[in-house]
Amino acid sequence: MTERIAYFNGSYVPESEVLIPFRDRGFVLGDAVFDTARTFGGKIFKLGEHIERLYRSLKAIDIDPGMTPQEMQKISEEVVRRNLSHLEEGDDYWIFQRITRGQNVVGGELWQSSGPTVIVECTPLPIKTRAKVFHEGIDMHVPSIRRIPPECLSPSVKSHNYLNLVLADLEVRDKGPNAWAILLDTRGFLCEGIGCNLFLVRNGCLLTPRSQYVLAGVSRQTVIELAEKLGIPIIEDDLLPYDALNADEAFITSTSFCICPARSCNGKTIGDSPLPGPITSKLQQAFAEEVEYDFVEQYLRYLSGK
Amino acid sequence: MTERIAYFNGSYVPESEVLIPFRDRGFVLGDAVFDTARTFGGKIFKLGEHIERLYRSLKAIDIDPGMTPQEMQKISEEVVRRNLSHLEEGDDYWIFQRITRGQNVVGGELWQSSGPTVIVECTPLPIKTRAKVFHEGIDMHVPSIRRIPPECLSPSVKSHNYLNLVLADLEVRDKGPNAWAILLDTRGFLCEGIGCNLFLVRNGCLLTPRSQYVLAGVSRQTVIELAEKLGIPIIEDDLLPYDALNADEAFITSTSFCICPARSCNGKTIGDSPLPGPITSKLQQAFAEEVEYDFVEQYLRYLSGK
Amino acid sequence: MTERIAYFNGSYVPESEVLIPFRDRGFVLGDAVFDTARTFGGKIFKLGEHIERLYRSLKAIDIDPGMTPQEMQKISEEVVRRNLSHLEEGDDYWIFQRITRGQNVVGGELWQSSGPTVIVECTPLPIKTRAKVFHEGIDMHVPSIRRIPPECLSPSVKSHNYLNLVLADLEVRDKGPNAWAILLDTRGFLCEGIGCNLFLVRNGCLLTPRSQYVLAGVSRQTVIELAEKLGIPIIEDDLLPYDALNADEAFITSTSFCICPARSCNGKTIGDSPLPGPITSKLQQAFAEEVEYDFVEQYLRYLSGK
Amino acid sequence: MTERIAYFNGSYVPESEVLIPFRDRGFVLGDAVFDTARTFGGKIFKLGEHIERLYRSLKAIDIDPGMTPQEMQKISEEVVRRNLSHLEEGDDYWIFQRITRGQNVVGGELWQSSGPTVIVECTPLPIKTRAKVFHEGIDMHVPSIRRIPPECLSPSVKSHNYLNLVLADLEVRDKGPNAWAILLDTRGFLCEGIGCNLFLVRNGCLLTPRSQYVLAGVSRQTVIELAEKLGIPIIEDDLLPYDALNADEAFITSTSFCICPARSCNGKTIGDSPLPGPITSKLQQAFAEEVEYDFVEQYLRYLSGK
Amino acid sequence: MTERIAYFNGSYVPESEVLIPFRDRGFVLGDAVFDTARTFGGKIFKLGEHIERLYRSLKAIDIDPGMTPQEMQKISEEVVRRNLSHLEEGDDYWIFQRITRGQNVVGGELWQSSGPTVIVECTPLPIKTRAKVFHEGIDMHVPSIRRIPPECLSPSVKSHNYLNLVLADLEVRDKGPNAWAILLDTRGFLCEGIGCNLFLVRNGCLLTPRSQYVLAGVSRQTVIELAEKLGIPIIEDDLLPYDALNADEAFITSTSFCICPARSCNGKTIGDSPLPGPITSKLQQAFAEEVEYDFVEQYLRYLSGK
Amino acid sequence: MTERIAYFNGSYVPESEVLIPFRDRGFVLGDAVFDTARTFGGKIFKLGEHIERLYRSLKAIDIDPGMTPQEMQKISEEVVRRNLSHLEEGDDYWIFQRITRGQNVVGGELWQSSGPTVIVECTPLPIKTRAKVFHEGIDMHVPSIRRIPPECLSPSVKSHNYLNLVLADLEVRDKGPNAWAILLDTRGFLCEGIGCNLFLVRNGCLLTPRSQYVLAGVSRQTVIELAEKLGIPIIEDDLLPYDALNADEAFITSTSFCICPARSCNGKTIGDSPLPGPITSKLQQAFAEEVEYDFVEQYLRYLSGK
Repeated sequence: MTERIAYFNGSYVPESEVLIPFRDRGFVLGDAVFDTARTFGGKIFKLGEHIERLYRSLKAIDIDPGMTPQEMQKISEEVVRRNLSHLEEGDDYWIFQRITRGQNVVGGELWQSSGPTVIVECTPLPIKTRAKVFHEGIDMHVPSIRRIPPECLSPSVKSHNYLNLVLADLEVRDKGPNAWAILLDTRGFLCEGIGCNLFLVRNGCLLTPRSQYVLAGVSRQTVIELAEKLGIPIIEDDLLPYDALNADEAFITSTSFCICPARSCNGKTIGDSPLPGPITSKLQQAFAEEVEYDFVEQYLRYLSGK
Repeated sequence: MTERIAYFNGSYVPESEVLIPFRDRGFVLGDAVFDTARTFGGKIFKLGEHIERLYRSLKAIDIDPGMTPQEMQKISEEVVRRNLSHLEEGDDYWIFQRITRGQNVVGGELWQSSGPTVIVECTPLPIKTRAKVFHEGIDMHVPSIRRIPPECLSPSVKSHNYLNLVLADLEVRDKGPNAWAILLDTRGFLCEGIGCNLFLVRNGCLLTPRSQYVLAGVSRQTVIELAEKLGIPIIEDDLLPYDALNADEAFITSTSFCICPARSCNGKTIGDSPLPGPITSKLQQAFAEEVEYDFVEQYLRYLSGK
Repeated sequence: MTERIAYFNGSYVPESEVLIPFRDRGFVLGDAVFDTARTFGGKIFKLGEHIERLYRSLKAIDIDPGMTPQEMQKISEEVVRRNLSHLEEGDDYWIFQRITRGQNVVGGELWQSSGPTVIVECTPLPIKTRAKVFHEGIDMHVPSIRRIPPECLSPSVKSHNYLNLVLADLEVRDKGPNAWAILLDTRGFLCEGIGCNLFLVRNGCLLTPRSQYVLAGVSRQTVIELAEKLGIPIIEDDLLPYDALNADEAFITSTSFCICPARSCNGKTIGDSPLPGPITSKLQQAFAEEVEYDFVEQYLRYLSGK
Repeated sequence: MTERIAYFNGSYVPESEVLIPFRDRGFVLGDAVFDTARTFGGKIFKLGEHIERLYRSLKAIDIDPGMTPQEMQKISEEVVRRNLSHLEEGDDYWIFQRITRGQNVVGGELWQSSGPTVIVECTPLPIKTRAKVFHEGIDMHVPSIRRIPPECLSPSVKSHNYLNLVLADLEVRDKGPNAWAILLDTRGFLCEGIGCNLFLVRNGCLLTPRSQYVLAGVSRQTVIELAEKLGIPIIEDDLLPYDALNADEAFITSTSFCICPARSCNGKTIGDSPLPGPITSKLQQAFAEEVEYDFVEQYLRYLSGK
Repeated sequence: MTERIAYFNGSYVPESEVLIPFRDRGFVLGDAVFDTARTFGGKIFKLGEHIERLYRSLKAIDIDPGMTPQEMQKISEEVVRRNLSHLEEGDDYWIFQRITRGQNVVGGELWQSSGPTVIVECTPLPIKTRAKVFHEGIDMHVPSIRRIPPECLSPSVKSHNYLNLVLADLEVRDKGPNAWAILLDTRGFLCEGIGCNLFLVRNGCLLTPRSQYVLAGVSRQTVIELAEKLGIPIIEDDLLPYDALNADEAFITSTSFCICPARSCNGKTIGDSPLPGPITSKLQQAFAEEVEYDFVEQYLRYLSGK
Repeated sequence: MTERIAYFNGSYVPESEVLIPFRDRGFVLGDAVFDTARTFGGKIFKLGEHIERLYRSLKAIDIDPGMTPQEMQKISEEVVRRNLSHLEEGDDYWIFQRITRGQNVVGGELWQSSGPTVIVECTPLPIKTRAKVFHEGIDMHVPSIRRIPPECLSPSVKSHNYLNLVLADLEVRDKGPNAWAILLDTRGFLCEGIGCNLFLVRNGCLLTPRSQYVLAGVSRQTVIELAEKLGIPIIEDDLLPYDALNADEAFITSTSFCICPARSCNGKTIGDSPLPGPITSKLQQAFAEEVEYDFVEQYLRYLSGK
């Protein structure tokens, strides 16, 4: 079997040839941004929105990728097109765009760098790996480490600096395979997890942390718009662990999961109903219609006995 | 001319072969730590202390490098040994050890990874590039962005998450070639710059920010110990920009600079004396004796007319 | 005259027999939650809402009361029923439910405890004592002590840890009999007083501190719903002492007071109109209709000359 | 067998008769302070210091206990004297003094209360229960909840408001029987656990969190004084989890434990040496000499096989 | 030519006679408040609103100006009337009311003072000076100094304590003549500049920092009301520098500028369209209609070639 | 009787001629700094230190006074010399230097100003007014308003922005004539009062808030040096109201008071001894020797019966 193909600084090459020189600032300093969309049945969803967000990240940290958003979009589509044949039945791709400030200059100053490094690649989604947690629901745990505050790094910039989130996840690993870290911000309010946003349902109303303190995901935005269409009130607000564990329903959104129910917070079961709860379920259906693909079925088919 | 040699996952290879697969977590997440010592006249200074600090970083973020500190030390010495012939007259090396958590697993979970990636390499110091600023003195500027607080990431962990410091530096680039960003912590006190610590001299006393809020450099520790030997009182304390611009002298320490005088803070000249000030000069001399190498001369010889 | 009857761990007993062993965690650690509704003309108002909130508090701190909310509700109704004959003409009851984690275990660990202690009791409201302040209006004073932030204890958990609020009240006692402490949160915004919420009226609009920083009272919620019915705009927002002293009207809500006008903030008279101001008065009337009882008259009849 | 005797509002009575009316403010509001000393071989250690601290707590929250410190001391001694015969071989007592602001007044205001409630009692120490953790070492875990900051409640006031610490402990219960919660303060620095202080050993130097953010225990003070006598440098400083897990040794102090070694922090083993580490052990011996009792042996004799 | 006339403690005098004794608290302590309206074509705009705000400032810091708002309004109108003849063609006035707590008492206490000092004066607007920046757009720069938080001084009180804002402005002076400092609040969100408020346009929606953290200007309020009339959604929210530099348009409002476009934030160009952007332009037109004066033309006529 | 003479922008004039144009930035913006020394028996104490501090303030906010420190010192001495004959028996002077950034430019930008305004004047000390409080002791009260944090304005810059301190004082005025506001910083620690520093005595040790959060007075520094001479340990530390009310002694220092005992904190008597306590008294004597003047007697002679 042949390899997947990725775009790397102007060329389409096999993934094994996408190799980063060790002096690249994206490596040594995390001085890089990325974004990631996904396919549904092989078609990329909201690629334009993802690339717009990528360019906002680039502007915020002053990296010039050397190409227009339109070019980036075309490359992304081409990468998917070239790899579609590698997709197994029922699987799908993450499409990542990554741009670094380039390499450090030997003998130069810390702020000097070569031109940008650009990678566009697609990675099969961990559908099978996540089928169980998608079915049973996530166990949210609040770790002791706090999310980096906006005055230090804007949470809207999707960069290669994820150590804060990695450490949060490490803290809760021993809570079981369904455990997912949801960090508090430095004020003590619920914030986000690694690559995901949080939603609560309370008295028929949808609640989600304010966008100032999180990376406002495209899936999050999709859910907000679907809720508005469905007439479900939606409020962005400061939320406490108290609110999560006393919610009627809870779920997380991410590019891969779309909408994944949460079954507990800090060890306390959320709500009384079987998962997914009624509003979570309604939103999953609306999301599936929006993407024209039954992503719920995609996850669940991997469960034994299904 | 042949290439410099680096250690890469078990082998000594030319630098151009040290290439990181793009799914390495040190690249995509900054999930990696490093440390860096330097040579003086080709001899590594305090390599043991640097490697001890590296292993504290590794322990703090739970990465197993797959080798003992002693092995890491030997490899570092070997890398220098193999590259000594590349050193030009009067130049010296930075020795970097970098360890990542390894590669993300395609189809796996966010917290899964292959074994560690280990790189040990040496980079020529930017002696020539920095000769002018070393001679004229640094212009310290406080940027608007604040240093990440300890509750989010311990400043003692020297990781691949340097974007906060990179952005600080970008803010002050238009202040001239001698500009160096010194960030405030989230409380508003002077903290550190990218890869450097700050010292002030006031009434014959040495002042430096508290170690809880900075990466306490090995050069910083060396200066503290030299000051004690010289009978110069040294206090770790919370310091304000007011203190810096009203200081009698100021300097920064870093592995490459050792001790570099600062001439101004936020556009205001520091002190009345020509640079380096009397106590800065005394410490530079003591440092040179400690490392058995005249690093001041090493920088200054590159100045035109010198 | 016979004693009031209370429910205590399974039995209905005279109040004098409701005695807590000194090792009960509700006593030594404040490791207990409570809630309190009131009667109007002997009928309990929104008992269901109060008990729901009680069970949210219980869940948040992981105490199992050993009975369902329905059972708790029945017991509460029974306690009132048994004590109705003790009510003097024109008086009413507070109904308290209190549940502790039980007793510490001698020789055991700090986290060990016997089963829960459950008390349901009713206490005559201090109608007479508060008649004067109800008529003249409360003098709000901001003490120097700040309310405990949500990252340390959720303000929504109504627990036996009220020392912070007790100390706030002590600070303002010498400001006169109408003085009531309204604390600031740790950010400096108006928050709540001991057992009460705050409302301001500005340009015909009702303002109240955000629910994240206060115990959102059932009376507060009732006022919000009445305001919506009456077409009075209502905004939850961060409010400053500046906003209070420059408001057109202000009032506090609590289970006992329902709605009590405030006449001053930090010594400055609020608004120009006699108390209660027009919107306060409108809400008092609507509240009285909601509870089907003229609680204003109930307070005022105790005034001399009335 | 007869019961232990306690002092209760003027009388010496069997413990089962020390019963708190449910309207006592120490119960419903946690409006009470306490202190606790312990005996060694039946003799009370530093009772005077404990009672001085108790009176500082009383003064800080404005409760008049109705007796002098000298009287409180005599009562405490008498309570121990009366219960010595109940002590089993090798066991010892905690002596607690508890003073509440008295009972709420029915029909009165929130700030009204009857005179104080005073209890002095002694509880057998959980020597047997804690023998295993004393031998194996404590597993320190940092919970997500933060310690209440000084601007809200002075940590020096030992009150009946311990819910913050109780919840911290609940968070780490599933980490195993040796788990002990060490909270961070709201700045993110190591603070204290329920009833205990923390010490680290680094390069032969003793480190402990600053007294402003913790209840500075009498055992903590004893250790500080012993370290000074032994010539071990001791620094009160802001400490991070990074410092704890990279320490050479760590231990906690409390009235019951005196000095108990810690073996890990957040799952990472502390130091290389078997427990207790050399400096911990030295301090345990000095402590035992100070109290003239081998408290280490007292704990360890309960271990099977010992 | 004769001098402009000002009101000074009861009299209308030439400006050169409005001289403050050096012990006036408005001078030595900044213990004074002010407000400022402007004329359009010689007619004062929203003088009533400005004077109401002035009296809220006075009440908040407890200064009695010795006259009613109505009297203050009449005096202000009279001052303008007396100076209209001094206005050059196409120019206009700022009208300032300033009230201090009066003079310190020699030999008295710090809190003693003579009666208030009242000044009402009018100053020609810097139309000509600001024509270029009005045309080219403001370069917003975030300085390192943070705005004073509400817990220390309410931002709504327009007092003589502007040093914090003056220092912010000094920080960005070397960024060019169009540079304007926009401070962050102590949480890191965009706040305000010296005498101006900030607006962003994103996806057709108007965004402005929350009124709790800024002096909510009368021009800001006018823009909010005009936006509502024009059907432009307007949200008060916490905004980051990321939001400003990624906005479609941005502008500031102030009494003198009314609405002045911003062209960049921290050196990054805002939006793609020529200035003023479409929504900024629409609001400028609506503002001009509201004040019945073409203030845009007023500024631009001073440009060379216009 | 003739008037006192002051220095005003180059001339020595009667005080009544020192009149500030109302557009001076020192007036309208508080854009000015000052310092103040005092005389003892007509001789100025530590004038050099005060002027050095003044020039540090000037440098920090970038005002050029147009003269050297030596010139400023000579002018100050001359002002005192010219006014000595006005001093009544037993009285003394405050010497103030005040420098503003000059006048705003009509039609110019906010940051434009004329050259500096310089005033040097002397004001008789309020010895008689303060005799009672000096004798009886100060009642310290913590107000609800917090001191401006260093990240917004350095507390070391003695500027014309004192409104924060003025408002703190207003809050406690109704606590009696001896009341003095001691503010907390934004972290909740004791900080300073208007023009004064705080000292506590605990177990023979002197404690005072850390210099980062206060204006470190020259009197404060004098006390620190005297304590060192007298062998009294002195610690700069974070202190809580708990520490103040439980101190053995407390006093404040200021240029006028030198050392004035405090008798209470938040209504609770400090210590058991009559005022001044033994260490306060010792320091007062040492201070009197240092200044070669019995300032205690100077205050007390005004007491009736003395």
